[in-house]
Amino acid sequence: MRHADALDQLAGLLGPRLSRSDAERAQHGRSESHFPTVLPDAVAYPETAAEVQELVRICAEHRCPVTGWGAGTSLEGHGLAVKGGVVVDFTRMNKVLEVRPADMDVTIQPGVTREALNEELRATGLFFPVDPGANASLGGMAMTRASGTTTVRYGSMRENVLGVEAVLADGRIIRTGTRARKSAAGYDLTALMVGSEGTLGLVTELTLRLHGIPEATSAGICAFPDMHAAVTAVMETIQMGIPMARIEFVDAATARAFTAYSGLEMAEAPHLLVEFHGSPESVAQDAERFAEIVADHGASPFRWSTREEERRALWAMRHNGYYAILAARKGARGLVTDMCVPISQLATAVEETQADIAAGSIPGPILGHVGDGNFHAILLIDPDQPAELEEAKRLSHRMAERALRLGGTCTGEHGVGMGKLPYMEAEHGAGWDVMGEIKQALDPLGILNPGKLVRQG
Amino acid sequence: MRHADALDQLAGLLGPRLSRSDAERAQHGRSESHFPTVLPDAVAYPETAAEVQELVRICAEHRCPVTGWGAGTSLEGHGLAVKGGVVVDFTRMNKVLEVRPADMDVTIQPGVTREALNEELRATGLFFPVDPGANASLGGMAMTRASGTTTVRYGSMRENVLGVEAVLADGRIIRTGTRARKSAAGYDLTALMVGSEGTLGLVTELTLRLHGIPEATSAGICAFPDMHAAVTAVMETIQMGIPMARIEFVDAATARAFTAYSGLEMAEAPHLLVEFHGSPESVAQDAERFAEIVADHGASPFRWSTREEERRALWAMRHNGYYAILAARKGARGLVTDMCVPISQLATAVEETQADIAAGSIPGPILGHVGDGNFHAILLIDPDQPAELEEAKRLSHRMAERALRLGGTCTGEHGVGMGKLPYMEAEHGAGWDVMGEIKQALDPLGILNPGKLVRQG
Repeated sequence: MRHADALDQLAGLLGPRLSRSDAERAQHGRSESHFPTVLPDAVAYPETAAEVQELVRICAEHRCPVTGWGAGTSLEGHGLAVKGGVVVDFTRMNKVLEVRPADMDVTIQPGVTREALNEELRATGLFFPVDPGANASLGGMAMTRASGTTTVRYGSMRENVLGVEAVLADGRIIRTGTRARKSAAGYDLTALMVGSEGTLGLVTELTLRLHGIPEATSAGICAFPDMHAAVTAVMETIQMGIPMARIEFVDAATARAFTAYSGLEMAEAPHLLVEFHGSPESVAQDAERFAEIVADHGASPFRWSTREEERRALWAMRHNGYYAILAARKGARGLVTDMCVPISQLATAVEETQADIAAGSIPGPILGHVGDGNFHAILLIDPDQPAELEEAKRLSHRMAERALRLGGTCTGEHGVGMGKLPYMEAEHGAGWDVMGEIKQALDPLGILNPGKLVRQG
Repeated sequence: MRHADALDQLAGLLGPRLSRSDAERAQHGRSESHFPTVLPDAVAYPETAAEVQELVRICAEHRCPVTGWGAGTSLEGHGLAVKGGVVVDFTRMNKVLEVRPADMDVTIQPGVTREALNEELRATGLFFPVDPGANASLGGMAMTRASGTTTVRYGSMRENVLGVEAVLADGRIIRTGTRARKSAAGYDLTALMVGSEGTLGLVTELTLRLHGIPEATSAGICAFPDMHAAVTAVMETIQMGIPMARIEFVDAATARAFTAYSGLEMAEAPHLLVEFHGSPESVAQDAERFAEIVADHGASPFRWSTREEERRALWAMRHNGYYAILAARKGARGLVTDMCVPISQLATAVEETQADIAAGSIPGPILGHVGDGNFHAILLIDPDQPAELEEAKRLSHRMAERALRLGGTCTGEHGVGMGKLPYMEAEHGAGWDVMGEIKQALDPLGILNPGKLVRQG
């Protein structure tokens, strides 16, 4: 067993909350994606920042790697302990510490999930908007700079984390940000921590912005003759300043999968699913203006409603999208790609990706947060055919290159982890070296989530 | 003359665009605020990133300090070369390089001013919203993480800079960010550079988000019986989800100064100045809903208009606020304070500040971006009475401490510079050390704007 001394000390610290069992290690050695299983040496379940601090100090002393774990929903292998060591599972740090309705903010522990937080907030009339689909932990969402369907209106984790408490590699605890809505007081350490994937510190507390549940909501769907028409309609809507709360694109293959899975009837054509938030008058007006725009682009009539039941059915279908697409090929696993480009390049990006997928043998329905220029192809591979995984990786590789060629990023919202490491140099140039220098300054022993995000020493 | 070798080499590089004249040094040795004049050894006027790169390499070789200079509107002495060396004036790097209406973004050089950019954008139907009042350079605004009247709706420089090109302390050039609207690809170097006050790099290019000029705008004003009533009305408006584009508070002393300066008649009472952006229907509806809220809090009838002439008069008065207040005491200089707190603490913060000012001998009208919890007292001092400057500094000191005690920040939008250095440790604790470690990693010689933002070695 590697790191035996560290583990013995950690067992002394955490008692039964340090597990070396095969079952727990296996559970924390798998990702939601295609990365091979990597067993950590142990799994720790701290309950306080002080315990995390002591854990990190022990691990630093013994050069034992420390990798954070939220809800395990990452798609780029962020939580895999590829250099061994301890996985720190934040499940037991799942308290909502303080809701402040007057300030529209909340302080939580990192293991609180998105759905648990919104459940807790229900009586306040407030909600936390960032919605990546999965019921991820908010600590994990902060660490991967998650976004999702509502980012076009409310921003991503970048805009919605006011501050964090974090344990650094040497055991120091810092608190970034204040509860003020803005500040010009020095380097933006909050923004540096958000998206750092546990390589600079372990977050033990977060203060998040909340938003008022809109008085009224309208949502609807329409089909387009082709993808170009759909994307052009999105661009016009943005330029008209119509404030969309969500605007999701699905291609014909995804529409077919949705129909088969949900029983709702969708034409086998590209669609937009759209939502507006505001007053009863404004959401009706927004929907009507949107209906005029899409009609100009040959869309089917924009069917919209303010009734909760119909809206729920629409977004349940979207939220189940991954499973609907998986079900489209029996026994398949999904490799989920993630690219984001300037909106003027979006039609080109989707078109080239569709053509690339069509030229191969793997199905790859496309869906995305089109208001941000972000989309995913879900490449459906037969797990018994290694050649299919290789083909999917080649398609994903070409998507990343395409994103960079079109002025975008190799990952809009899933993060770097292991899957996007090969593109960091191309995307950032000397900026990737700078990231490595910051990592070296704050974690000179390289114990925090080694093997991720920065160049390996 | 200090740094003579560096200056000789810089003269070789820049020719007459390196000035050692007393007049130019004096012009770049004064700040808009109360800091004593500090003459730099020379002033450089580069025209390209390559020149800035070569300049920094020469200065690094000779350990010669390099301090950036935009439009000279900083209020915390950011541009003062307190350790000598070269001030780099970006006035000649003032080109708008590319406007991309479809992507609603623009790439500019750092010397472009806010007003020049919006002038250039006029035909596109787009605008850049961040408005600190002064016609600052956008490079300087990025470096101080500026915000202003429209931040409550459109965000600050933090949210509106998509990426920068910067020359680092060793002469490397990095490009942060992409033109995609969001990214999860590693550390947020854009956010690290924004607000770094030229201590980590010199920005040579910026890509900014643009916004559509709203189809319609309504704006208006009303008076309140007291400050509490005004702040409570703001909180209710936010919680109702009424989307304000601006919401500015002025106290009774400011209202009196405005009346004297502009000739517009304002009651000597606290006021709110408010603006809404949207469709003709929505801005009328927003104004009417706001009128109902303020009526509940005993305000005078909310007088609003969608007519450009009336709106212009209103905001011209607000924009001239600083000069109107200065004129309220003949021959006075202003020391402008800047605190930002959670909105639940705003009434307390303003009230305590007003009482503190009233107990002394210096006038200090208050105005602020109340939707963000940010406000300023403009302390009017007689420049011939050193005791008044000391009293103003004590008041400013107590405001900073008050901001921290109430969970806020010592600077909402003016930055650290020299004026807020004494509060960095109290605000950030170990986080300030982390800022120093980042600075040390990226500028080990300490040549970039030494004496600002981080602890001095």
